[in-house]
Amino acid sequence: MAAVTGPKVVVIGAGTGTFTILSALKYYARDITAIVNMSDDGGSTGVLRDELGALPPGDVRQCLVALSESDEKMRNLFNYRFDEGALEGHSFGNLFLTALEKTTGSFGEAVKTAGDILKISGQVVPVTLSNIKLVLTEPGGEVIKGEYQIVQHTFKSSRPNLSLEPAAKLNPEAKAAIENADIVVIAPGNLYTSLAPTLMVGGISEALAATSAKLVYVSNLVTKPGQTDGFKVHDYVREIERFIGSKTVDYVIYNEVKPSSALLKKYAQAGEYAVEFDQTVFEKSRYQAIGADLISGNIPKLKASEQRIPRTLIRHDSDKVARLIMRIYFS
Amino acid sequence: MAAVTGPKVVVIGAGTGTFTILSALKYYARDITAIVNMSDDGGSTGVLRDELGALPPGDVRQCLVALSESDEKMRNLFNYRFDEGALEGHSFGNLFLTALEKTTGSFGEAVKTAGDILKISGQVVPVTLSNIKLVLTEPGGEVIKGEYQIVQHTFKSSRPNLSLEPAAKLNPEAKAAIENADIVVIAPGNLYTSLAPTLMVGGISEALAATSAKLVYVSNLVTKPGQTDGFKVHDYVREIERFIGSKTVDYVIYNEVKPSSALLKKYAQAGEYAVEFDQTVFEKSRYQAIGADLISGNIPKLKASEQRIPRTLIRHDSDKVARLIMRIYFS
Repeated sequence: MAAVTGPKVVVIGAGTGTFTILSALKYYARDITAIVNMSDDGGSTGVLRDELGALPPGDVRQCLVALSESDEKMRNLFNYRFDEGALEGHSFGNLFLTALEKTTGSFGEAVKTAGDILKISGQVVPVTLSNIKLVLTEPGGEVIKGEYQIVQHTFKSSRPNLSLEPAAKLNPEAKAAIENADIVVIAPGNLYTSLAPTLMVGGISEALAATSAKLVYVSNLVTKPGQTDGFKVHDYVREIERFIGSKTVDYVIYNEVKPSSALLKKYAQAGEYAVEFDQTVFEKSRYQAIGADLISGNIPKLKASEQRIPRTLIRHDSDKVARLIMRIYFS
Repeated sequence: MAAVTGPKVVVIGAGTGTFTILSALKYYARDITAIVNMSDDGGSTGVLRDELGALPPGDVRQCLVALSESDEKMRNLFNYRFDEGALEGHSFGNLFLTALEKTTGSFGEAVKTAGDILKISGQVVPVTLSNIKLVLTEPGGEVIKGEYQIVQHTFKSSRPNLSLEPAAKLNPEAKAAIENADIVVIAPGNLYTSLAPTLMVGGISEALAATSAKLVYVSNLVTKPGQTDGFKVHDYVREIERFIGSKTVDYVIYNEVKPSSALLKKYAQAGEYAVEFDQTVFEKSRYQAIGADLISGNIPKLKASEQRIPRTLIRHDSDKVARLIMRIYFS
């Protein structure tokens, strides 16, 4: 009899969206691999890349904290941001990963050591160990470099031409995890500045084609102004499949309950709108769609020092999403 | 039968001198308490105090690393200094302790948590949790504030008038450790800027008077220009007893073998001279003196990034000193 391992789950994404899914999923599965975007170059992460030539620690840090079985003290420490002086804005966990990268000589080793210290269940794997930048080439030929610049950019095309510079090589541990997985989840996140740069890493398409895992996408809840205006669930799926190339999405988990009109109004002021599901388009598509009330009732209260970008109020309920993922696994 | 604990050893001092003794002493005793100076305000530590209102982490960090049973990777991480950008000069361990102080709300708690993570044998105890400055008042009335300023100062008196501002309160854990100790060691270190501010903390004198422990001083190897010029072993003892007040030193461990003339010449260029032992004065004193060859044959090779102040070449041999301390315990 083979050893019991439970489901082998891979979650692909960046910081917050992956954090949300991992935080609950770890209670249903032990063999979890978070495969993490490595193109972030904003904030504390951007400073560490620029000044110290470090690989980007921010997204990895959030996934490590999500999978940590340590007590609250350690998790708070990792998420702590210095709020004064020359250290202002730096997340302690980012400094931890960078100092480990410098002393061990390898970012991959640094992530493993930090995982041991944080007693994580599962593993966190940078999608690539290449030092990459995200690049957007607009139809007119204009070139925008760097994730932080692109996040703030208004796109001229609804099928933007993105690339990585230099071409990124898939981390062999990410490849192995995808190939051996039972289920691969694409976490919600910024489509063009978190998911695209992760899914575009050379070799991920082949790994997804080679795996027998079910491929699940957890749809975003709101659109991003200037980038995914008017996008419905199927538009996100179409773009994700464009980035993956060789494999199609098997399941889509989407929210089917409208947030309160007060919240929607607040979001509309920032040009953000709830992502809708179009039944007519769906009926012509290959994937299975699972709609549910996915919105979290807990509105987070964070100190200003803990969060530089205002935390979204419309967010996924970790546990509801994790349960739907597990239901797909058992279906 | 009472539980076997082995010798209860307290080591009082600051960074490097205490580090040296602890590094070897941990192999001979398990119940070790390092009681550490809290008046440092230079370098990375000074910046963290100024910019973040933190208590000084530098000396504590060195003692934690000395007692760590973790692998080399963790110890290297704690001692790592960022060498570029806005973080330049900051020791990672200092940032670790400061971030823990901020997230746990207490420096004492931070030191304990860091000790757990570094798997230390024994404990590291800040001599006080008061936020203090060392103050020197010169005979003419001139007042110099702050350890970093005083370190560089040429003293007008050979019995300088030092004080702490505000008056420091002894950490209750330091008090308990001293009172229960079998042996209390005063580690070598800058007499007026490391040992004095530690020994002058209110209550330490009473704790030393109350303990039945043997009090051992490990003498410095070289004088400090402008501060202890011409000092012999007994001059250090006299000054230490002045700072302690109520208790006299029982044993003095000193070096009796001259360093090489090449090394002495190099030191003389910086105004530093080997500390000598005066047999005539000793014969009139109360303490027992143990002379031995205490000089380390290992000259450390450190990267520039690991050490801001050039490491001394004439240093104590950790193991030789530890063995002499244990011989006193068993005598």
